[in-house]
Amino acid sequence: MDSLKVGIIGCGTVGGGVVKLLIENREVIAERIGKRIDIVFVADKDVEKVKKLGIPEEKIVDNGFKALERKCDVVVELIGGTTIAKEIILSAIEKGRDVVTANKALLADYGEELFKKAREKGVSLKFEASVGGGIPVIKALREGLAGNKIERICGIINGTANYILTEMTEKGITFEEALRKAQELGYAEADPTLDVEGYDAAHKIAVLSTLSFCRWVKTENVYVRGIKDITPLDIELAREFGYKVKLLAISKLVDEELEVRVHPTMIPENHILSNVNGVFNACLIEGDFVGDTLYYGKGAGEKPTASAVVSDIIDIAIGNRYSVPECLFKDEEKLKIKAPEEFISSFYLRFTAVDKPGVLAKISKILADYGISIKMALQKSIDINGGVPVVMTTHPACKSKILKAIEEIDRLDVILSPTFVCMIEEL
Amino acid sequence: MDSLKVGIIGCGTVGGGVVKLLIENREVIAERIGKRIDIVFVADKDVEKVKKLGIPEEKIVDNGFKALERKCDVVVELIGGTTIAKEIILSAIEKGRDVVTANKALLADYGEELFKKAREKGVSLKFEASVGGGIPVIKALREGLAGNKIERICGIINGTANYILTEMTEKGITFEEALRKAQELGYAEADPTLDVEGYDAAHKIAVLSTLSFCRWVKTENVYVRGIKDITPLDIELAREFGYKVKLLAISKLVDEELEVRVHPTMIPENHILSNVNGVFNACLIEGDFVGDTLYYGKGAGEKPTASAVVSDIIDIAIGNRYSVPECLFKDEEKLKIKAPEEFISSFYLRFTAVDKPGVLAKISKILADYGISIKMALQKSIDINGGVPVVMTTHPACKSKILKAIEEIDRLDVILSPTFVCMIEEL
Repeated sequence: MDSLKVGIIGCGTVGGGVVKLLIENREVIAERIGKRIDIVFVADKDVEKVKKLGIPEEKIVDNGFKALERKCDVVVELIGGTTIAKEIILSAIEKGRDVVTANKALLADYGEELFKKAREKGVSLKFEASVGGGIPVIKALREGLAGNKIERICGIINGTANYILTEMTEKGITFEEALRKAQELGYAEADPTLDVEGYDAAHKIAVLSTLSFCRWVKTENVYVRGIKDITPLDIELAREFGYKVKLLAISKLVDEELEVRVHPTMIPENHILSNVNGVFNACLIEGDFVGDTLYYGKGAGEKPTASAVVSDIIDIAIGNRYSVPECLFKDEEKLKIKAPEEFISSFYLRFTAVDKPGVLAKISKILADYGISIKMALQKSIDINGGVPVVMTTHPACKSKILKAIEEIDRLDVILSPTFVCMIEEL
Repeated sequence: MDSLKVGIIGCGTVGGGVVKLLIENREVIAERIGKRIDIVFVADKDVEKVKKLGIPEEKIVDNGFKALERKCDVVVELIGGTTIAKEIILSAIEKGRDVVTANKALLADYGEELFKKAREKGVSLKFEASVGGGIPVIKALREGLAGNKIERICGIINGTANYILTEMTEKGITFEEALRKAQELGYAEADPTLDVEGYDAAHKIAVLSTLSFCRWVKTENVYVRGIKDITPLDIELAREFGYKVKLLAISKLVDEELEVRVHPTMIPENHILSNVNGVFNACLIEGDFVGDTLYYGKGAGEKPTASAVVSDIIDIAIGNRYSVPECLFKDEEKLKIKAPEEFISSFYLRFTAVDKPGVLAKISKILADYGISIKMALQKSIDINGGVPVVMTTHPACKSKILKAIEEIDRLDVILSPTFVCMIEEL
């Protein structure tokens, strides 16, 4: 039986999972594809850790660059980060090896350089594990829906943030309490910035957008807002309007411009995406022929991520070397990225106002002056900082107008604290 | 730019959709994959219909076999049925063409012969559109999860049956009323047998099982029961126990035997699969490394199905010619198919009993004699044929014991009509 020779660089959580999978399911995979997948080296500073996984000493290298001097067909980069990982990948490509990576941050920021180099050298650069953990969403988008014009992607693609929002929703606890719980359970890191500020999701939606819209989309093209200022009160009020609050990554074509954004979003509570809870991820992809499709599963963790990495290796083994659309390499005018001020969306607005007659009239007047049309309004007799919440949802409006109206409203003497704003996405 | 020459045989709903897609999205696809997909012929008896789709007359053939004499790279079989379609595919393979089909009935019953022939001739036989309409579930299972041992598949893979059960659940109407509505809306055919009796879902789960368990699984290996005897009462009682009723196709390894079945199933109402409503399909696939994954979308219709057919054509264009696992072709002992009597499951039992003291004791006594343990019980004061419903769910028990116990219970003079039985699947 033929074999594909694989070298793994970086043996942390994901790397360890890949080693375990390739050992445990070695026979199953060989039976399926008619080819063995052999680990020819594993590179990691911690040689002992690798040995414990059952890799013989002669296959362990304590340095990634040294490892690259050895022969193999596929290099799997699982170091993470955007410095050494980038050098490793470029060097592997230079040597004519196919490459598999899970590195979303690297792809989001240096994808263009890396994929151009891979194409120039005629090698494949695969990245299923970069988005959605074990869910084969890259494959679905790149191949399964390849006949479609992609119209919109809406993804819950950060498990940590989704866990925190789910806990806040189900138990009515604050962001800080939910974060602490996530940290205790190992769902959030000691420094949770990347997850709760939305940057991890931004890397991922950049990768998905690049695959879908024939344009290199980088992190800097993504509007990002995290979930830190979400309160149990807004989650509860959203529910009264029929919405759930999720950290949604959205990428869509609007007026022939591309809108790419990650932010807390209110979505209809009866939609299947609203039922994606805890650390689970899901991605809704809309194509012009297929309509709505959704992909759901564990978005992180040793074993699910290993499943995705190995699917890339298997792809290479079966001769499926397609990695990104060809149109990305054409020198022609690319889609414009829409500026955040120009986003058109429905909005949820929570004003904190003194409990006096005429307040609603004053707020409504200013909104009307800016041409903003109110869809639903609700006033609750809950005390917040000596005021009451006045809550509204709007019909679709331009974000710049909303911000200007709110600036003006917040200057009213009946308004006690800055207005809370959240975009709504209808599904 | 290179081109892939495609001939389409059968231009009904799906065939027409494929023609439309390949015309409408011609540029998008070419830009993505760097190759044009050219329709070189379309075969259909109704030449005028094909002409209206914009296919020039010289490319239209009124007979599939005649069409096969023309040159092409890929033959797309969209005639349906298991007679002429089979001959067409065999003949195309014989001529060395790659083949794409959406024909689940054919694959379920003659897959072994067709795939063996394709392998012998070194051609690819692809079938994404055979299960789940536009959802790329075949690709996910065959490639995206290829590193996993598959443990269980649970699919809502018949949109008609799901529409009917959703209507019954949401509106409390009977099966007959819901079926009539489905027929009026074009979701059910005049003769709805294949859909409501479960055979369409059986074909599909046979295909998914063949891909997953290294064994040719045919329709005859699938235990099938339709949804005709489901009543609004059982849907309502199931809800009180926390379940929804779905026509579920299940395939799983139990004690190293394969259990493949399609039947009305009660599933936990808070599971994401329970939120798959109307004509939507979804497939839950569990792998040993990836855990639970779910794929959701439109399971039928011209455009979604065309999306799947075209994804197969694109696969061939990009050099991904893998169609079924290699292990299927090995002559070795295959997994045994578990007999329906041996299924171990939790059960929902609804007895119709006279409203007298001691009834529950009599029923419970017989169940206990067969070693069946009751999990929950409920007696309702609703009149059915002069009796009342006594409802129970059991802990996992062997189906043969359940059937024997019920036979005995149904002979009791306090029991007024045959007991209704439904399997429960925990997710």
